[in-house]
Amino acid sequence: MTPPPTTRARLARYLPILQWARDYDRDTLASDTLAAVIVTIMLIPQSLAYALLAGLPAEMGLYASILPLVAYAMFGTSRALAVGPVAVVSLMTAAAVANLGLTEPAQIAVAAGTLALISGLILTVLGLLRLGFVANFLSHPVIAGFITASGILIATSQLKHILGVEAHGHTLPMLLGSLFENIGQMTPITAMIGVAATGFLFWVRKGLKPLLLRAGLGARSADVLTKAGPVAAVAVTTLLVWALGLHRHGVAIVGEVPMGLPPLTLPAFDADLWSSLFVSALLISIIGFVESVSVAQTLAAKKRQRIVPDQELVGLGTANIAASVTGGYPVTGGFARSVVNFDAGAETPAAGAFTAIGILLAALLLTPLLYFLPKATLAATIIVAVLSLVDFSILRRTWGYSHVDFAAVAATIVLTLGFGVEAGVSAGVILSVGLFLYKTSRPHVAEVGLVPGTQHFRNILRHEVETDPSLVTLRIDESLYFANARFLEDYIYDRVAGDESVRNVVLMCSAVNEIDMSALESLEEINRRLHDMGITLHLSEVKGPVMDRLKRCHFLDDLTGTVFLSQYDAIRALSPRHGGRVA
Amino acid sequence: MTPPPTTRARLARYLPILQWARDYDRDTLASDTLAAVIVTIMLIPQSLAYALLAGLPAEMGLYASILPLVAYAMFGTSRALAVGPVAVVSLMTAAAVANLGLTEPAQIAVAAGTLALISGLILTVLGLLRLGFVANFLSHPVIAGFITASGILIATSQLKHILGVEAHGHTLPMLLGSLFENIGQMTPITAMIGVAATGFLFWVRKGLKPLLLRAGLGARSADVLTKAGPVAAVAVTTLLVWALGLHRHGVAIVGEVPMGLPPLTLPAFDADLWSSLFVSALLISIIGFVESVSVAQTLAAKKRQRIVPDQELVGLGTANIAASVTGGYPVTGGFARSVVNFDAGAETPAAGAFTAIGILLAALLLTPLLYFLPKATLAATIIVAVLSLVDFSILRRTWGYSHVDFAAVAATIVLTLGFGVEAGVSAGVILSVGLFLYKTSRPHVAEVGLVPGTQHFRNILRHEVETDPSLVTLRIDESLYFANARFLEDYIYDRVAGDESVRNVVLMCSAVNEIDMSALESLEEINRRLHDMGITLHLSEVKGPVMDRLKRCHFLDDLTGTVFLSQYDAIRALSPRHGGRVA
Repeated sequence: MTPPPTTRARLARYLPILQWARDYDRDTLASDTLAAVIVTIMLIPQSLAYALLAGLPAEMGLYASILPLVAYAMFGTSRALAVGPVAVVSLMTAAAVANLGLTEPAQIAVAAGTLALISGLILTVLGLLRLGFVANFLSHPVIAGFITASGILIATSQLKHILGVEAHGHTLPMLLGSLFENIGQMTPITAMIGVAATGFLFWVRKGLKPLLLRAGLGARSADVLTKAGPVAAVAVTTLLVWALGLHRHGVAIVGEVPMGLPPLTLPAFDADLWSSLFVSALLISIIGFVESVSVAQTLAAKKRQRIVPDQELVGLGTANIAASVTGGYPVTGGFARSVVNFDAGAETPAAGAFTAIGILLAALLLTPLLYFLPKATLAATIIVAVLSLVDFSILRRTWGYSHVDFAAVAATIVLTLGFGVEAGVSAGVILSVGLFLYKTSRPHVAEVGLVPGTQHFRNILRHEVETDPSLVTLRIDESLYFANARFLEDYIYDRVAGDESVRNVVLMCSAVNEIDMSALESLEEINRRLHDMGITLHLSEVKGPVMDRLKRCHFLDDLTGTVFLSQYDAIRALSPRHGGRVA
Repeated sequence: MTPPPTTRARLARYLPILQWARDYDRDTLASDTLAAVIVTIMLIPQSLAYALLAGLPAEMGLYASILPLVAYAMFGTSRALAVGPVAVVSLMTAAAVANLGLTEPAQIAVAAGTLALISGLILTVLGLLRLGFVANFLSHPVIAGFITASGILIATSQLKHILGVEAHGHTLPMLLGSLFENIGQMTPITAMIGVAATGFLFWVRKGLKPLLLRAGLGARSADVLTKAGPVAAVAVTTLLVWALGLHRHGVAIVGEVPMGLPPLTLPAFDADLWSSLFVSALLISIIGFVESVSVAQTLAAKKRQRIVPDQELVGLGTANIAASVTGGYPVTGGFARSVVNFDAGAETPAAGAFTAIGILLAALLLTPLLYFLPKATLAATIIVAVLSLVDFSILRRTWGYSHVDFAAVAATIVLTLGFGVEAGVSAGVILSVGLFLYKTSRPHVAEVGLVPGTQHFRNILRHEVETDPSLVTLRIDESLYFANARFLEDYIYDRVAGDESVRNVVLMCSAVNEIDMSALESLEEINRRLHDMGITLHLSEVKGPVMDRLKRCHFLDDLTGTVFLSQYDAIRALSPRHGGRVA
């Protein structure tokens, strides 16, 4: 027996910070601080780059990495999740805002902040209502396909910064088309910086760590240095532009980034804007939540901890609301960043709050240094980061396992690339649900007979079994509900129509986990129609909960036959010739 | 072994008329003709009335009852279904056309014909592609709720004709509001005719037949006379209006109905119109098909015949296409009419073709007689017909059986009444699907133990069973798929997190009919995370088809534990102390 929860325990359910803050000690502080330093170093270039990917001023990325982290530290349940701007959500933000057709940068920033607010409210409400299951409507293959396609879209969208040409669009054909069209604008110096930075970052990711290890560095120091690669790329290219005045030769730079605290911003409360952004915010919320919760779960399991998905919704929701009022845009838990945080030894969500302090210091002190930072370098960090998301193996794996899953993932990839992120993820959800309903609407039904000398029943098409022409036993391998109720009716009528020898039909319900009202009415109808044909209907092996429910209505009174506890009882009663032989 | 089908048999599959026309003899002809006469008498006032309900000229009801019946006789598989205009589809036609905001009667007629064409094409294509299962997405309670709410809407919409006032709207509040607003326009003579006709028709339905039987008439003749009640009401009130010149005192009459063959009409081929009508046509197709096929199935079963749902789609589809090119509007199989046809002895679809001849004669000869027919009389026939559709018992039955079904039916009724037929039926479908997914996303999972002295396993919460703290056995009562994959993960982590004694987890899969790719990945993840916690994962009682699929991927290689054929094998291997006692 669990004792009734105290007020404090009830409160801690909604405010997980109460669970860990009490036992916070010097050791934990040291671990969290180290993790925060490493994540801060990683997050500065990432947050700038993702803001540009979202089509927003670079500083919005920094602002989205301060208060949201503090909010998550208070309300989130994962001890290692690092929240902030991430690639896929930034791309979705860009798509959502582009739908509005705004041109004024100030309006775009307000729209992005409003998107964060709506998304934050959706997440928080879902969490408080314990509706986290809605995220389950995204099947794993659909998510995998969507992330892969998004990675390709993101990398392609950054090629314009690498090459220094203009390009627009939210689909692969549009992006590639406009890149080819404008390739003549390419600025050689930008391209040199972009290609060099990309090559350097790939090398850091693949080649640097082994080199450092061979040079005698400890594994941990090698790791930290590797994570600092993007910072090095940022520093070197910024210095180059500044020293050589490359911005006067066509290299696009970040330019002035305001110095200071994040501003207090007011999202727009405009009914039209809210209704235009609602579906986008819903998709962003669900994608962001699914990504975040799976990282959080993976990391929690490694320490035999647990996260509470519904409370995670509240944590991410408040983080987004915090982003919306402090000049940020939609955020969620980042995969790479959280793994780094975990590996660096983060023990509690306080590490996130310390990271927020780090980013705050950067916003207060470092922004002047970013003036000469080339956009090509930021694009390079994005490309290297997102290409690790691209993984077509899901196509091969689903093809081998289930063609239905393959169809869903292939459609998601093609539609995301061809029609953009929102079309892709919507189609993926609709297809997953539709194909599932289609499968369950045509359940496997086997006509079974008795395996001689046993009490077991097997498919008459696959096994040598004893049957009786007057007795048809159908084993239904699915719950009975509205989508397959008619199928069952058709199946039974097809089986008995024209077969004058049939006198008894037994439905073997060992795999029937539920019978809904539609299926109940179908059974009543089957019972009535079989009666009209002079055939008796029986059930066998009905599960306890299903039987409980059947007892609540008149079906059992009207049933022409009997409910047998086991199929063997049924055959002994209805076809003594067969059952008798074994008994 | 079935012999391979001949060309004729293959053709007969698509043209069911070939199956019965060959054996057609004098007796069948006599039966079919009698049935046709009775149905014609019933159909004339109905077809006029339903056309008015649809907001169309009365003659369109007649036209919709001629060629469509011939088309269904050729392509349909039911021997008793009587096709034509029906109440619910007429109401849905009115709603669909009202959405377009047309005012010109000629445009409205073309739109209704186009709706029939689109609906006919949808039905035919679904039939040829064997996609009849889409109709299954409407659960029985949702249909019942929808029909009940539609009946109320239809009856309310006819009150304006009964009272002789103007009223508009497609929802109950709008209809009642505009009735109250305009009640001052009420024309007493119209109201007297309307109320008298309604009262008379109710009396015919409830009181006449017993009276005739007591007067010594045969049951069959009494039935025919009862069905002729609406014709009598039409004849008497028409004569009254003509004789007393009541139309000059404010009684609305049908007026001029063109005499002659149905016109050849060309539906509009306008992309905008088609896209505006498409969703309405889809809903009309599905509702019409569901209604029609359930009547057809009920009647077929009484004679141990069968219908082919996919071919029914083709039959109804061609009937609608026929309606669209001969001045008609959407049609389907009518419930009351088909029962009359069946009871009157119809043996083959030829009865439908003979009914078409009867209606054709009416269109050629009787239309001048309809000039003085009061609209109030037609409204009375509609009200009496549709009130038999209204049946709130579905609310009580679903409440007792399943609260989920109750929620779906209540929402369908409220939304249909409050927001119209299209909103109602759409919400019903979405709710049915959503609630089903919700239920399956939180499957019943029972932790089971060994019933002492047996090889059976039962829920530890409900039974006295033997357990072993190091061994957790979970029986999952649902197929594993994307919507419940995460639930299972959470459930298992919750169970083992913090319980240091657990060494083995067994998933008992006797009720798992499928494991999709998402669930497979969840299992892989569970396997990996349990391994990180030092726990071994096992499966037991995996079904053949599920096992076949698991063998196609790497899961079984990576599984830390074993797949046991039976749960009893599992407990003997993993907890010899318990299994041993019984063995």
